Amino acid sequence: MTASQNGSDSTLWPTPSAARVFSERRRRLLDRYPEPALFVAGFCRPRNFPANQHAFRAESHFLYLVGRSLEGAVLSTGGGNAVLYVPPPDAEAVLWAGPQSSLADLEKELEIAVRPIDELSASPELATLPPQDGDTAEWLSERLGRDVDSGSGDDLDGADAKLADVMVELRLRHDAAAAAQIRQAVAVTELAHRGGMAATRPAIREAVVRAAMEQAIIANGMTCSYGSIVTGHGEVLHNERHDGVLEPADLVLADVGAETPEGWAADITRTWPVSGHYTSTQRTIYELVLDVQRAAIDAVQPGASYRDVHHTAGRRLVSGLVELGILRGDAQELFERGAAALFFPHGVGHLLGLDVHDMEDLGDRAGYAAGRKRSTSATDRFLRLDRDLEAGMAVTVEPGFYRIPAILDDSERVAPFVDALNRDELDKFSDVRGIRIEDDVLVTAEGNDVLSRSIPKHPGDVEATMREARGG
Amino acid sequence: MTASQNGSDSTLWPTPSAARVFSERRRRLLDRYPEPALFVAGFCRPRNFPANQHAFRAESHFLYLVGRSLEGAVLSTGGGNAVLYVPPPDAEAVLWAGPQSSLADLEKELEIAVRPIDELSASPELATLPPQDGDTAEWLSERLGRDVDSGSGDDLDGADAKLADVMVELRLRHDAAAAAQIRQAVAVTELAHRGGMAATRPAIREAVVRAAMEQAIIANGMTCSYGSIVTGHGEVLHNERHDGVLEPADLVLADVGAETPEGWAADITRTWPVSGHYTSTQRTIYELVLDVQRAAIDAVQPGASYRDVHHTAGRRLVSGLVELGILRGDAQELFERGAAALFFPHGVGHLLGLDVHDMEDLGDRAGYAAGRKRSTSATDRFLRLDRDLEAGMAVTVEPGFYRIPAILDDSERVAPFVDALNRDELDKFSDVRGIRIEDDVLVTAEGNDVLSRSIPKHPGDVEATMREARGG
Repeated sequence: MTASQNGSDSTLWPTPSAARVFSERRRRLLDRYPEPALFVAGFCRPRNFPANQHAFRAESHFLYLVGRSLEGAVLSTGGGNAVLYVPPPDAEAVLWAGPQSSLADLEKELEIAVRPIDELSASPELATLPPQDGDTAEWLSERLGRDVDSGSGDDLDGADAKLADVMVELRLRHDAAAAAQIRQAVAVTELAHRGGMAATRPAIREAVVRAAMEQAIIANGMTCSYGSIVTGHGEVLHNERHDGVLEPADLVLADVGAETPEGWAADITRTWPVSGHYTSTQRTIYELVLDVQRAAIDAVQPGASYRDVHHTAGRRLVSGLVELGILRGDAQELFERGAAALFFPHGVGHLLGLDVHDMEDLGDRAGYAAGRKRSTSATDRFLRLDRDLEAGMAVTVEPGFYRIPAILDDSERVAPFVDALNRDELDKFSDVRGIRIEDDVLVTAEGNDVLSRSIPKHPGDVEATMREARGG
Repeated sequence: MTASQNGSDSTLWPTPSAARVFSERRRRLLDRYPEPALFVAGFCRPRNFPANQHAFRAESHFLYLVGRSLEGAVLSTGGGNAVLYVPPPDAEAVLWAGPQSSLADLEKELEIAVRPIDELSASPELATLPPQDGDTAEWLSERLGRDVDSGSGDDLDGADAKLADVMVELRLRHDAAAAAQIRQAVAVTELAHRGGMAATRPAIREAVVRAAMEQAIIANGMTCSYGSIVTGHGEVLHNERHDGVLEPADLVLADVGAETPEGWAADITRTWPVSGHYTSTQRTIYELVLDVQRAAIDAVQPGASYRDVHHTAGRRLVSGLVELGILRGDAQELFERGAAALFFPHGVGHLLGLDVHDMEDLGDRAGYAAGRKRSTSATDRFLRLDRDLEAGMAVTVEPGFYRIPAILDDSERVAPFVDALNRDELDKFSDVRGIRIEDDVLVTAEGNDVLSRSIPKHPGDVEATMREARGG
C-alpha cells in the first residue's frame, strides 16, 4: 500500500478516455436530439479576488460530451454535427500558463471540429441546460438572447426540457468508458480510506485524518468529488467541521471520494474506531449496519425499484433494532409507521456518475422516474432516487445508524414511538454517535458489481488494516 | 518536524483573534467612514450542482471587520454603529450541519449586535464594495436597488470609491492581530515546504510533492491561500499542472501558502533539487537569485519605494548575469534598457494580507499610490505594488530567474539585447528552467522582519533538510 499511496506506483495515475468515446456520445446525442443545442463549459469561480480562483471544473454535461475542462468553451450540436468553440490561445498567457494548445492541436486531440469562440452564433431557439453559476448564466443569456437561469433544472420547459430529458436518458446508463472512469476514482478513493485508517490515532484532530485522505487523492492526480466529511461526530450527517480532537472511544466517520480529471466521481463512507478496535457496543451496531447494507446491496438488481432498496434497508434496520431491544414491537409495523427514520433519516443512496449525486443539476429529473414524486413521509422524504434500476446505472448504497439529538430529543418526532423506543437499551450504545457504510455499486445484467468491495469494511478487516499501519 | 507535521503537535492549530480586534477595526472604520455602508460576506460558489459547493470563504472586507465566514451575512455600519445581519438558524439544517449558532450566541461570541437578515433595510445611497461573484452581486443589487458589479473595483465612483479608499487605508498597515494571523499562516506554510522537500525524490509526479505540502496545510486546520504551484517547469510562472514526472536533474519550484480560518494568507516559494543536491550550475544561479533577494529584502524599509525594491532586484540580477557572462555590457545600462525582464519578467512582489495579493479585488487602488500608474515598460509592467512602504505593511519579496522560451525565442523581444545575450554561456545553465525564492516580509519601524526566515532557503539548509528526511 505505501508504494501506491505515496504515488511512486503510477498505475493509479488517471487514464483518459479515448477521443472516440466522446464522438460516440455526441453521435448518440445527435441521434436523439437532432435540433440545435449548446453546452457550455462555464467559467472559473472567483475566490477572494478576480485572479484567485477556485480550480476550474467544467459543467458535467459538457464533460460528458467533450471530456476536458476547457474554460469558456461551448459545444454546439445539431444538424448531425458537433463543433467545439473555444477561446483562442492568448499570447500573454504563455508566460503565466505555459504553452497553449492551438485550435488545430485541440481538433486533433479531441477529434472534433474546433473554432474560435467569436465565431459562435446563437439564437433564442437553441436548447441549453442551466449552468451552475450566475456569471456563466449571464454570459449564456447574452449569447442566446434569452434568459437562462443558473442552478437547478427542475422547472425547464420547451426545448431545454427536452434536451434535459435526452441527457438524462444518455447519462443514466453508463457506457464502458464511464464505468472505467468510476473504477479509477474508486481505486484512488481506496487509497484515501486506507490512508485515513492508517493516520488515525487518539488525540489528533479530525483534520489530520482528512489531510491523510486527501493527500492520497491529490498525489494521484485527482480532486475530491465533494467536500470531505471526516468526523468524530458522525451523527451530523454532512459534518463539514474538522477541528474536533479524536478521543480513544470515538468512531471516525469518513465520507470521502475522488474525482477523475474527466469529472467522474467516487463516493465512499467507512466508519472506524480511533483506538483501532471497535468496542462491543460499537461492533454490535456496526455489524447491524453492515447487515442492513448487505441486504440493500442484494436488492440492487436490474428491474428492482430503488425505493425498494431503500425500504429493504429501513426494514432490516428496524428488525435489527427490535432484536437488540432498542425498539419494542412488531418490526414491520414499526417500519411502516416510519421508525427507521428515527435512526436513519436519509435516503439509502443516489445515482453516481459525473456528479456525486448524478445529474442533480437537473433537479429530480434524473433521480425520479416520470410520474414519481418526492414523498413527504419520514422514511422517504430525503430519498434522492426513485427509479427502476437498469444495467449500467451506478448507485451508492449507504445505510446508517445515528443517535441524532435533534430527532431523539424532539418530542413531536418521537411521540408516535414513545412506547416503542427503549431509551435504557439505546443508552447502552452511547459510544455510537453515527455509523455509515457506503459503497459504489454498478447495476449489471446479472445483478450488481460492488466497485468498492476491496476497501476494508468488515470489522476484522478494518482492525487489521489499522493494526498493520501501526506496525503491530 | 514529524511530530508537528503530522498534527499531533497542536501548537500550530489556528488561534482565532479576540472579538475586540474586530470591534476595534469596526470603530476605526466608523471614525473614517461614518456614512452608512454594507459589507457582504457573499454566498457559496456552486461546483457541479447546487448542493455540491466550493468551500465557503467570505469576502475579505467582511472578514477584516467580522472575522468569520458566515455565508449570506451582511455587516451594516454607519451612524456610529455596526450591526451584523445573518440568515437565522434553519431547523432542517440541524440534521445535516449540526447544532446552529443562535443569533444570541453569535452576538456573544462576536461582540456585535446581530439581527436576522430579513430585517436588513438598504437603499441605493448606501456605500458598498464589489463582491467577487455575479450571484452575490445580483443579490446585493436587488437589496440596494442599484446595480453593483462583481469583480474588480478599479472603476468605482461616489460613496463606493470613498469607502474603498477608507478600507485600503485601514488594511494597508496591519494591526497586531493581523500580523499574528499572517505569522500563523507562515508557520503552517513552513511545515508544507519542509514536507514537500521531504517527499521529493526522482521518478514521482509533481502531484505527490503537492499532496505532501497540502497535507500539512489541511492537517493544521488551514486552507491553501491560492492554487499551489508545484512544478519541475518553474519557467511557467503560474504553472497549474502537477502531472509531470520529476527527473533527477530537475529543480522543483513550489509556490504554496496557507490561509488561516480568518482568511489571512502566507505566500512562500522555494526551489529545491529533486536529487537532493543542486548541481554546480543550478547552485550558481540559485545563489545569484538568493543574492538578488537579499538585496531586495534589505531595501524593504519604511519610507522606501517598493518600485525601488523591484529595481534593486532587477539591477542586482543583471549585474550577476554580467558577472556570469550570460549578459555582456554595462550592467546599469542593460538594466535601464529592460534586460532584467528577459529572465525575470514579473514584479518582485505584492502586498500580502487577507488576500494573497492584498486588496486586488479593488484593482490597483491598493497596490498603486494615488497618482501612480502601471508602467508599460518591460521591467515594470507586471509590478503589482508601487507605494512608499510604511511600518505595518506586509509584502512578498520574490525575485526569480527563468529561461522562458516565449521570451528568449521571441526575436522581437530579444532584438534590443541580441549583442548582449551570450547564448553559449546561457546554454551552460540548461538544467535551470526556473528558480524563484519568495519570502513574506513585514515592514517595521526599524526596517523589516522576514516572517518566513526559518523556512530552509540557503542551499546547504535545503540539502540538509532533504538529507534528514531521507534518513541519511
